[in-house]
Amino acid sequence: MDDRDDAPPRVTRPSAGHQLSRRAFLGVAGGSAAALGLAGVGGVALGRALIEPPLPDARTYPFAGIHQAGITTPAQDRLYTAAFDVTTTSRDELVRMLQRWTTVSARLVDGLPAGPSGSTSGPYDAPPEDTGEAMDLPAAGLTITLGVGRSLFVGPPEAPQDRFGLAHRLPAGLVALPHFPGDALEPGRSDGDLVVQACADDPQVAVHAIRNLTRTAFGTARVRWSQLGFGRTSSTSRAQQTPRNLFGFKDGTANLMGEETAELERHVWVQAEDAPSPDATWLTGGTYLVARRIRMNLETWDRTSLREQEGIVGRTKGAGAPLSGGDERTEPDFGATGRGDAPLIPKGAHVRLAHPSANGGVRMLRRGYTFTDGNDSLGRLDAGLFFVAFVRDARTQFIPMQTQLARADGLSEYLEHTGSGLYAVPPGVPRIGPEGSLVGGAFLGEGLFA
Amino acid sequence: MDDRDDAPPRVTRPSAGHQLSRRAFLGVAGGSAAALGLAGVGGVALGRALIEPPLPDARTYPFAGIHQAGITTPAQDRLYTAAFDVTTTSRDELVRMLQRWTTVSARLVDGLPAGPSGSTSGPYDAPPEDTGEAMDLPAAGLTITLGVGRSLFVGPPEAPQDRFGLAHRLPAGLVALPHFPGDALEPGRSDGDLVVQACADDPQVAVHAIRNLTRTAFGTARVRWSQLGFGRTSSTSRAQQTPRNLFGFKDGTANLMGEETAELERHVWVQAEDAPSPDATWLTGGTYLVARRIRMNLETWDRTSLREQEGIVGRTKGAGAPLSGGDERTEPDFGATGRGDAPLIPKGAHVRLAHPSANGGVRMLRRGYTFTDGNDSLGRLDAGLFFVAFVRDARTQFIPMQTQLARADGLSEYLEHTGSGLYAVPPGVPRIGPEGSLVGGAFLGEGLFA
Repeated sequence: MDDRDDAPPRVTRPSAGHQLSRRAFLGVAGGSAAALGLAGVGGVALGRALIEPPLPDARTYPFAGIHQAGITTPAQDRLYTAAFDVTTTSRDELVRMLQRWTTVSARLVDGLPAGPSGSTSGPYDAPPEDTGEAMDLPAAGLTITLGVGRSLFVGPPEAPQDRFGLAHRLPAGLVALPHFPGDALEPGRSDGDLVVQACADDPQVAVHAIRNLTRTAFGTARVRWSQLGFGRTSSTSRAQQTPRNLFGFKDGTANLMGEETAELERHVWVQAEDAPSPDATWLTGGTYLVARRIRMNLETWDRTSLREQEGIVGRTKGAGAPLSGGDERTEPDFGATGRGDAPLIPKGAHVRLAHPSANGGVRMLRRGYTFTDGNDSLGRLDAGLFFVAFVRDARTQFIPMQTQLARADGLSEYLEHTGSGLYAVPPGVPRIGPEGSLVGGAFLGEGLFA
Repeated sequence: MDDRDDAPPRVTRPSAGHQLSRRAFLGVAGGSAAALGLAGVGGVALGRALIEPPLPDARTYPFAGIHQAGITTPAQDRLYTAAFDVTTTSRDELVRMLQRWTTVSARLVDGLPAGPSGSTSGPYDAPPEDTGEAMDLPAAGLTITLGVGRSLFVGPPEAPQDRFGLAHRLPAGLVALPHFPGDALEPGRSDGDLVVQACADDPQVAVHAIRNLTRTAFGTARVRWSQLGFGRTSSTSRAQQTPRNLFGFKDGTANLMGEETAELERHVWVQAEDAPSPDATWLTGGTYLVARRIRMNLETWDRTSLREQEGIVGRTKGAGAPLSGGDERTEPDFGATGRGDAPLIPKGAHVRLAHPSANGGVRMLRRGYTFTDGNDSLGRLDAGLFFVAFVRDARTQFIPMQTQLARADGLSEYLEHTGSGLYAVPPGVPRIGPEGSLVGGAFLGEGLFA
């Protein structure tokens, strides 16, 4: 199947009509190269696995909806997230930027360039409306998700201020996260007035989205930190295979899934009753995004025994089954004991401490990604987990759980939290017009200013 | 087609026999999610483009050959490259490490774990032989390419020394690169005794390879710098589509291709006659790898007009055709003039200055990747091109061309070179045994010690 026939006209793309995804073309390359007699040329033979060309990754997710996309959307392969500091003090300019972001985001997730004239069809003596590196690429399942930080409402802790007359709109759950044991947070990797999460199956599509939104924000907001995540470490749909993190273990087996509608209402989506005042009801239908850049001490981990690794995690490394038995999907039996009445799942095991039963029944929708940013001066990889979770209230979900994990979890010894942010994620835009035009003036974050 | 039936037994992988690639599973996910009635759940509807599941990316390239793989191999989607400093002073230890690297590399490119007992089948009280994060992933077209830096032979400039009795083996072309105008090189992103390039269509496979080789080198060598490249910016096969760089332009249209056998002999593969002495013939059949981490000033570029961008590059942004006319594959006509006898391709255009006709007929095989490493404190993206080129002799190919580009190329204004390295790439290992066992003692770099 192919959606190109019923896709909106990509008027600004020179290759429209015969658009082929890069991946599809690469796939074709295998076959063609063989036909060209490449095998053996220059000593390099093509492998034995000349598979059929993959189909174009032209999947698109609708931008409009009750909730924003990129939360319960089946986790895409790649992520690029950026936090922004608002540099203007004009409320109107901020509103206009969010309106532009809404239009540009809606266009990009549909596979359109950032502006109508795209990369090549505008006036020859003006900068192009789109930067162009995604010109030949499909939408690749792109989602763009906006969040707002506490500092947008009340300023940063070191300079409290109500720049935009939004202080009375502060949602109850948008607190300053406490310091957790083991935190080694860098200000340049933390917080920010706004956050934009771009997820796609092609990293160039995600980077292109952040870059073009950044450009659209020029003079109004600038990037505070940004992070590339090269591979997902969570599933958010029952139909997805559980990925492995850099410790080599399956991650997020017990994650809250997009299919669990009732549980999502209970644990992810902010309800009307959560608003501290009528002024803060704008977040109803939204959620909170917790981001933590967690560096993993891989060199130390790699020197621990398989026994120790499995004991720390509480699951088997291969199948991901709880140490109390069964398979990956079996519920852990924390009471099960083995030799000498020792618990099969050790007291400090991650699976025990992170389990809802140890956290007052709360759950989170995790949507994290693996990152690597090179290495430090000692030659250790600067790599780990860019933890992302969506929660209805961090005060009752993330904060108590992280407090417990940081104190007692055996895994914490191998982790260092170097970045952190908590953001309120507004509900979705109910409708969007053709090519990203606003319908009834609705834009992302509109409720903040109503 | 599927190569699993004739693949070597993956004895150490618990999932062998029913191994499904992550990507394949994700593909299935789309369909299954629809079947589960996901559309509309939580306000998120699946897009209209429910495509067929892509096939497993199980492609493998043979490790053994006259030349190393990863040079003329059709450029994979992702790269992770690391340079290493050798920390031992024992020649024997260095040799043993290169032997281990040969075996581990041959295993990994075949989709096997780093060691026979893998991630989960070794002794329970020992660290696993493989770190495990690629346990469920296919080979994804992995290639691993080894190079050796000048400092391995004669020590770094600040501390000249012949640690391993290799000074007389120094190939003529393994010079210290000169300082080029505009260089802003960081020592922590440059040089190194050894370099390993891992390319694959899945970044986790490439990162896994570097990590496990790093682990194998523990106590003998450590990472000096490493770089993730998230998307290829070159084609190395005529069957590949030309990708776009972060300036939005097609890159590497006129690249030397893997199919050009005679040209490869002339411009890429070191010939017997290139050896300065009989001691340096070990590089015959090898090549040189030039690596340059080139930061692109995207914010400045994005403010220039389409006219200026095209003039600087010398090609159209959309089709990538030379400004003298034709299409992407048309040879530029540097003599063509337009209004007022002005050249259609400006004097300082990149395509003109980088063209073989302006460089004594020399060509290079480029194999670069786009990177992003977050942003700087001013909010500018730290992103650009990780330039990789393979050449027969940098003294007559890369150095004169880069000298000319740095001085006169309009593009240089938007570029900053922050990392640099030149490495001699030994020829391939002629044969490799089952599961990476050495045949006749042959290992990567063996000629250095013969």
